Amino acid sequence: MCNHHHQNITTRVLSVPSAKAPFEQSTIERRDLRPEDILIDIMYCGICHSDIHNAHNDFGSGVFPMVPGHEIAGVVSAVGSKVTKFVAGDRVGVGCFVDSCGECPYCLKGEEQFCTKGVVIVFNSTDYDGNLTYGGYSQKIVVKENFVVKIPDILELDVASPLLCAGITTYSPMKHWNVGPGKKVAIVGMGGLGHLAVQFAHKMGAEVTVLSQTMNKKEESLQLGADFYYATSDAATFTKLAGQFDLILNTVSANLDVDAYLSMLQVDGTLVNVGLPNKPDQYSVFSLFAGRRSIAASNVGGIKETQEMLDYAAEQGIAPMIEVINADQVDEAFSRVLRSDVRYRFVIDMSSL
Amino acid sequence: MCNHHHQNITTRVLSVPSAKAPFEQSTIERRDLRPEDILIDIMYCGICHSDIHNAHNDFGSGVFPMVPGHEIAGVVSAVGSKVTKFVAGDRVGVGCFVDSCGECPYCLKGEEQFCTKGVVIVFNSTDYDGNLTYGGYSQKIVVKENFVVKIPDILELDVASPLLCAGITTYSPMKHWNVGPGKKVAIVGMGGLGHLAVQFAHKMGAEVTVLSQTMNKKEESLQLGADFYYATSDAATFTKLAGQFDLILNTVSANLDVDAYLSMLQVDGTLVNVGLPNKPDQYSVFSLFAGRRSIAASNVGGIKETQEMLDYAAEQGIAPMIEVINADQVDEAFSRVLRSDVRYRFVIDMSSL
Repeated sequence: MCNHHHQNITTRVLSVPSAKAPFEQSTIERRDLRPEDILIDIMYCGICHSDIHNAHNDFGSGVFPMVPGHEIAGVVSAVGSKVTKFVAGDRVGVGCFVDSCGECPYCLKGEEQFCTKGVVIVFNSTDYDGNLTYGGYSQKIVVKENFVVKIPDILELDVASPLLCAGITTYSPMKHWNVGPGKKVAIVGMGGLGHLAVQFAHKMGAEVTVLSQTMNKKEESLQLGADFYYATSDAATFTKLAGQFDLILNTVSANLDVDAYLSMLQVDGTLVNVGLPNKPDQYSVFSLFAGRRSIAASNVGGIKETQEMLDYAAEQGIAPMIEVINADQVDEAFSRVLRSDVRYRFVIDMSSL
Repeated sequence: MCNHHHQNITTRVLSVPSAKAPFEQSTIERRDLRPEDILIDIMYCGICHSDIHNAHNDFGSGVFPMVPGHEIAGVVSAVGSKVTKFVAGDRVGVGCFVDSCGECPYCLKGEEQFCTKGVVIVFNSTDYDGNLTYGGYSQKIVVKENFVVKIPDILELDVASPLLCAGITTYSPMKHWNVGPGKKVAIVGMGGLGHLAVQFAHKMGAEVTVLSQTMNKKEESLQLGADFYYATSDAATFTKLAGQFDLILNTVSANLDVDAYLSMLQVDGTLVNVGLPNKPDQYSVFSLFAGRRSIAASNVGGIKETQEMLDYAAEQGIAPMIEVINADQVDEAFSRVLRSDVRYRFVIDMSSL
């Protein structure tokens, strides 16, 4: 274990100089370790659709140069003087958050994503010390130990990385809306999130239906545990599945025909969005009224639940299907994600940086 | 008790000959009593906004001539041979439904509004025998006993009538979304539904806020049990109340700025619509995402819950504020409802027909 004071923690990063510009390889300084901090050697970082939204400044809140990345898997290389949970050599992960107030009712419940002070996001966010955060497309990162999770031995680090966002984003709403035996769950979109959602819902005991644009991903969906598969490009899908589902988890970031999806819900069913379209969605109150249905959205999950999800994935053999790429392939990977040409998650090998 | 066979049950009615036409006084025949039927002498019938929507054919599903009315209070005058729950002279009510399949999971749970065969509505609906239903703007009605509720002695029949729709429509979502001590509830719209919602939420122990267009109804709202009152015409209301409510019950039938209302919800809060706007509403997924919020809608309530609501209202001293009118004032009353000029529910005295 290494507790001495670090100076000049320089790390190589992949950074976007301006909105939509190609990535550049450069370096940044990470902060010196505070007593509760951990220094992590990042081995792998997954590419999430929201990395692209931010790098393209789709939400209008981008600060450049930007270092994206919030699906971080690596190994502890040093710890601060008051760190109790980790030692050098531990295999660890960091997801979307790197700090929260720790005192509000939500932080105390382990739901840091709802922190009343406002959670600090791992990149393109202002930390409580006023500094901009830089994410996981880099070789080293310094994070408070309370925002670091352990990666179970059985999970390879490259495979584990997408679980830190795509995993918890799909696991958390399933726990919140009580997915389990006897429940019928539809997963909209068979991508990075969707292919994990299928596995979680299946292992939790639900009957799982994949709703994808085309029939292209049917075979893999069934292999991952889906019971049924339908193409949403076929209008008959919506009439055939009318009133079927307890939960529809929408992993797609585009605007949907919300009323058409609501019509597939049972009484008291819920359409939960985890994708974030830029433009407003439309719905008719009648679509909800007919069956006391709900529209909701879920925002990743807390640190405690992220650890629980990793342990559950390890125990149940749930793993993302990944394509490992080098640092010089990230621009191409972004383009491929935008045209849904990835099965199912890109993971950057940070040793290639 | 009268169990003999009735012939030619003729009743005076208020009927609308065509969409938006003035009411006419005429007569219709009610069906002969079947073994499970009850003949009711209607004393009072409340005027609900949805009577107007139907009479104006706003939903496009109107069949004319139409006899509206689904807030029916009266006295049993005869019962069929197999009726067990009622005798002549009983004070009774009929709400929105007059039949359902009785066998599906929802009927068995007492949630007839979700009947998989489709519930039969008291007017402008096709009964299972193929006949069109005619509602409570009339002096007599024949209804299956399972769709009739008892009006507690302490409730006057004119006061009780609006409870049959406005009452159950506001009571049911409060029970479903667990309104009680420690909960903060906002009621949007201080009208026929809203002024009952305030009373229910208050008696259930919640902190109650009324959100009305203007400050005009503040005093009465506080008298009925509201703790706070704000005007939605003042934009500051929305910032002041950001993140406050567990439940917002929207009783308004017009389109809202949904995102603005969602911003007033706490984490895991729900915006429940009981008003039915004709046009779609719009929302941003971000408004839901930030606090795992939901948008939902609630559709009256089942017969068992309607009886429970009436008993609760009687026990707690909850009563609508009504303006009793004669049969020749209904056209004027419709106009006044449309310009929100009623405190808070019109009730037609059927003896004036």
